[in-house]
Amino acid sequence: MSTLRERFEQPALAALPKLTPHERALVHRELAEIAQGGYDGPLVEELRKLAAAVPERAYDDGAQVLLRMHEIAGSGNFQSCLSSLPLIRACFALDLVPEGGDAPAELIVGRGHIAPGFYAERYVRGSFPLAPLTTLHEGGLTGVIHRDLGFNNTMRYSLGVGVAQAVSLSMDLARRGDDRKVVCLAGDGELQEGVTFECLRFAYEMGLSNLILVVDANGRGIEPLHKPLNPKYLASFLPHVVEVDGQDSEAIQRALGALLRRPGSAALVCRTRKGEHSFKPANAAGKPDTPSFAGTSGRMLAAYQRRTGRDLAVFTADMAARFGLRGHLPYSNTGLAETLSVGLTLQLPEDTLKVIATDAMYYMDSLSMVTEASTSVRNLLVLAGRSWGAWGGAHNATNLLGLLLGVRVYEPVTPAEFDAVLDRLAAHPGTAHVASMIDARFDPPGIDCSSRLDGSVWMTPPAMARPQAALVTFGYASVLVAEANRDVGLPHLHCAALDPELDLDTRAALAGCRRIIGVEYNGAQGGFGERLRAKYLLPIEVHGIRHDIANRVHARQLALHGMDPQTLRGLLARLDAKEVDHAPAHA
Amino acid sequence: MSTLRERFEQPALAALPKLTPHERALVHRELAEIAQGGYDGPLVEELRKLAAAVPERAYDDGAQVLLRMHEIAGSGNFQSCLSSLPLIRACFALDLVPEGGDAPAELIVGRGHIAPGFYAERYVRGSFPLAPLTTLHEGGLTGVIHRDLGFNNTMRYSLGVGVAQAVSLSMDLARRGDDRKVVCLAGDGELQEGVTFECLRFAYEMGLSNLILVVDANGRGIEPLHKPLNPKYLASFLPHVVEVDGQDSEAIQRALGALLRRPGSAALVCRTRKGEHSFKPANAAGKPDTPSFAGTSGRMLAAYQRRTGRDLAVFTADMAARFGLRGHLPYSNTGLAETLSVGLTLQLPEDTLKVIATDAMYYMDSLSMVTEASTSVRNLLVLAGRSWGAWGGAHNATNLLGLLLGVRVYEPVTPAEFDAVLDRLAAHPGTAHVASMIDARFDPPGIDCSSRLDGSVWMTPPAMARPQAALVTFGYASVLVAEANRDVGLPHLHCAALDPELDLDTRAALAGCRRIIGVEYNGAQGGFGERLRAKYLLPIEVHGIRHDIANRVHARQLALHGMDPQTLRGLLARLDAKEVDHAPAHA
Repeated sequence: MSTLRERFEQPALAALPKLTPHERALVHRELAEIAQGGYDGPLVEELRKLAAAVPERAYDDGAQVLLRMHEIAGSGNFQSCLSSLPLIRACFALDLVPEGGDAPAELIVGRGHIAPGFYAERYVRGSFPLAPLTTLHEGGLTGVIHRDLGFNNTMRYSLGVGVAQAVSLSMDLARRGDDRKVVCLAGDGELQEGVTFECLRFAYEMGLSNLILVVDANGRGIEPLHKPLNPKYLASFLPHVVEVDGQDSEAIQRALGALLRRPGSAALVCRTRKGEHSFKPANAAGKPDTPSFAGTSGRMLAAYQRRTGRDLAVFTADMAARFGLRGHLPYSNTGLAETLSVGLTLQLPEDTLKVIATDAMYYMDSLSMVTEASTSVRNLLVLAGRSWGAWGGAHNATNLLGLLLGVRVYEPVTPAEFDAVLDRLAAHPGTAHVASMIDARFDPPGIDCSSRLDGSVWMTPPAMARPQAALVTFGYASVLVAEANRDVGLPHLHCAALDPELDLDTRAALAGCRRIIGVEYNGAQGGFGERLRAKYLLPIEVHGIRHDIANRVHARQLALHGMDPQTLRGLLARLDAKEVDHAPAHA
Repeated sequence: MSTLRERFEQPALAALPKLTPHERALVHRELAEIAQGGYDGPLVEELRKLAAAVPERAYDDGAQVLLRMHEIAGSGNFQSCLSSLPLIRACFALDLVPEGGDAPAELIVGRGHIAPGFYAERYVRGSFPLAPLTTLHEGGLTGVIHRDLGFNNTMRYSLGVGVAQAVSLSMDLARRGDDRKVVCLAGDGELQEGVTFECLRFAYEMGLSNLILVVDANGRGIEPLHKPLNPKYLASFLPHVVEVDGQDSEAIQRALGALLRRPGSAALVCRTRKGEHSFKPANAAGKPDTPSFAGTSGRMLAAYQRRTGRDLAVFTADMAARFGLRGHLPYSNTGLAETLSVGLTLQLPEDTLKVIATDAMYYMDSLSMVTEASTSVRNLLVLAGRSWGAWGGAHNATNLLGLLLGVRVYEPVTPAEFDAVLDRLAAHPGTAHVASMIDARFDPPGIDCSSRLDGSVWMTPPAMARPQAALVTFGYASVLVAEANRDVGLPHLHCAALDPELDLDTRAALAGCRRIIGVEYNGAQGGFGERLRAKYLLPIEVHGIRHDIANRVHARQLALHGMDPQTLRGLLARLDAKEVDHAPAHA
């Protein structure tokens, strides 16, 4: 089957009920066209071919297309895309967007989430079909910049990576005697990340004369910036800095065109506007969201402060919304500057509880600073967010934190477990405590580890003293497995600690099992199950993510990673069906 | 025993042969004074008390003291200390160096290695004794800033941490209504690290008006900087930037005094000079050093390039000397900007071999960028330095790299093993290869894993098919254990891969052992031995570093971490003495 069909047909069919009759008719025509075959080339070319085969357009304004994409998806970074749209239009007008032929300059898109803006513009220009647009964030189209979808670069994990990609390319073009320039599209939030400074400083010191930094200066990261982007800073490293009204596409086009023609590197600062970071469907307006478990952190911390009267200092790199801080307790937002948010804990009074509210996506570039803090700062709590519960795979972020000296890692799934982490920290102020906070909505289980935070608790106790099989699960996976196990009733042990101590009775019960399945919703490599295997030499078969994480909304991510109720029930049923005589030696 | 005596007596006695007669007489008098007792208070106070009890000074010039400290130690960062000495003197003259009472401002010393400069000045001012100065880097005094030795801050791992500590303290003073300023002593090399930008940008945006950044601008990190520190950059975030001759202590004192008196934050750029980064004893001049194993990297890479004709692009954050790059192949030095050195690999041609020559101390703050590179860049080789073979403990750096997606980690100890890593990368260009390169001098073993890089090889084969005990070792630990095992002759299995595949015969041999000792010179937690336990459920007892690393020269570090020949022979002898019936269930 063609990549085009494989990737978009099912999600487009699933989206049909959400479309207008006109949209639906056009998508049907596109799907019929694909079904006739002949779409076997590279994805980008096939998308162009399909658009040409069904040329009728539902919309002629990219902004309207963007809105519809987000309405259909129900989520995404609509405002980010919208603030960059005039800029994207200017790039099309200047032929900077790769369309097969040689572009007059290389375009690197560093604003990772604005891919939909490019698709919307391609759509109205007739080089992108409608069906994929209806699948955004729902298993078809991702909102993140990717080479497979017609960009020169791919964005994955790291903030500020686009500027590094641009400088990497600038150096390489210069080395190869190619005199084209590199246009790097960046955001003012992203320019707060330390690596972007390293890039600009280095480009200046190397005398690179082929870099044009175009900044969407909308004054917001996720939260509003404390101050607008400082053009003097850019001017200290780039010989020419121009400001322009970023809502005027033609003005951008003129200014950028001029910078491309004149010799030397430069920055073009486009002053734009941006609304709320995350898209909310119109019908959801007014309704307060049920917060995710992570979203209750602010409330739980405030309650702890009232209970203990302690002095708290909270730092976050733009993650206040994720943790529900606002309105509950004061915090310092460092902007998109993760290492700094850790560094600010270093010289505070010993007894102050220092809280770093961060995200697995971010703290991977500050592990040295986290080590610094974890070995020298007392009363340190790291709230390590897990978006949709699932930063596993490539990140293994929780596991990495668990390897740092002087750190204990927990994944609480009830308010009582979270409180137990805080109380344990108060009792062991010299050990940094990490709480992996799940950004998902779920009903907290009725049984938890709050009274044995470092140990384990049977969510479903074994019916006999020596069970034949058992489940051992960590944090959020316990919630998912408990749901799947409801009608199966296998013995099920829950741990809130990444590296738990199992008591003698528990170890004896597990040692007698012919099969033990360990489930964790994180990178399995070096994770919870493998630690238990290493520690107790128990033959736990690990069910967890080994490959890269999937960039999908929660429900789809669960299924893709084998963590949905159906997959888990299948896993449990095989144990239950007395398949227990076949124990793999090596999971 | 008093901390003073416990910490300095033995190392001072050991240093006696290296002293002049006058120095020796004074040290004897100090040791006699300590031996009389009464030195039981906090270390800093006792140092002052001892200096007062034996007031005669061997020198009255701090520069001379510094030179003698380094001559006695035989190593260290003499030139770094020397370039900051006028600055340190100005700090003393302005009463900024904590001496018990309230200082007019808080001093944060961000240049981590210039502690000896402060000790030297304290010595000539009569508040520091001589004996500790003779123990630098040799088990007594460390050269790194530490609270225990009279500083307001402690430096450990992270580059640029001093500026973060200063901003942390500035915010806290402002919050508490304390109107004193924070003076932060930084280097121009350190200001290349991204986090320092995050700090300055944030201080500016928060309107902090109590930060005085004093820069020792000597134009060098470890290597010379590409361009001098850019004062326009500082001026974009600090309202007042003053430059001064950094070799004129009185000029610094006047300028810094004025900045302390006037309202608002500021930067004082002291233009200084610095010689070669690492101290070389005078009698070693002219003699070319035998390079460490890491130091042969440049030569080995150049040979590989000649052998294969491949295009190489080499990036390093100031680590060219460590890897012996100069004179062997071209490289780009990014300065002290680790994340950038990874980022520059992102947009190069696919077939180019991209080499990042880095150090465990540094790459911990770029793991997200390393993940970005390891999942998107083909033909990526990371040379991950291990200073003196021993970044274990707090860093666990090799182990952390081993958890990243798409990464294979090796620790070659022969040129053939290094070549095997390069050949394996050529065969698997989609997988990033990490070579942990040992910065120590040793004779490569005669047997290696070059023909089975992912497997294992018996350095000492078992005498019988089913041995009772065995040693399993990783990388550099294999060299150390082979030495200790020479006259013991226990079966000894060597692996160059952090996560090796053991073949069936090897597993069978090990499975029959009553005791298996695993030795690795890295953080044991989540390391080589624990991985083998988890993978094969083998009851390996892990001998490795679990606590923080010791900041000592190689020979002393070996002993402190139980990796010296004597400790290892003891470990082996206990196995050999048929103590094999007592196998701990849990190492």
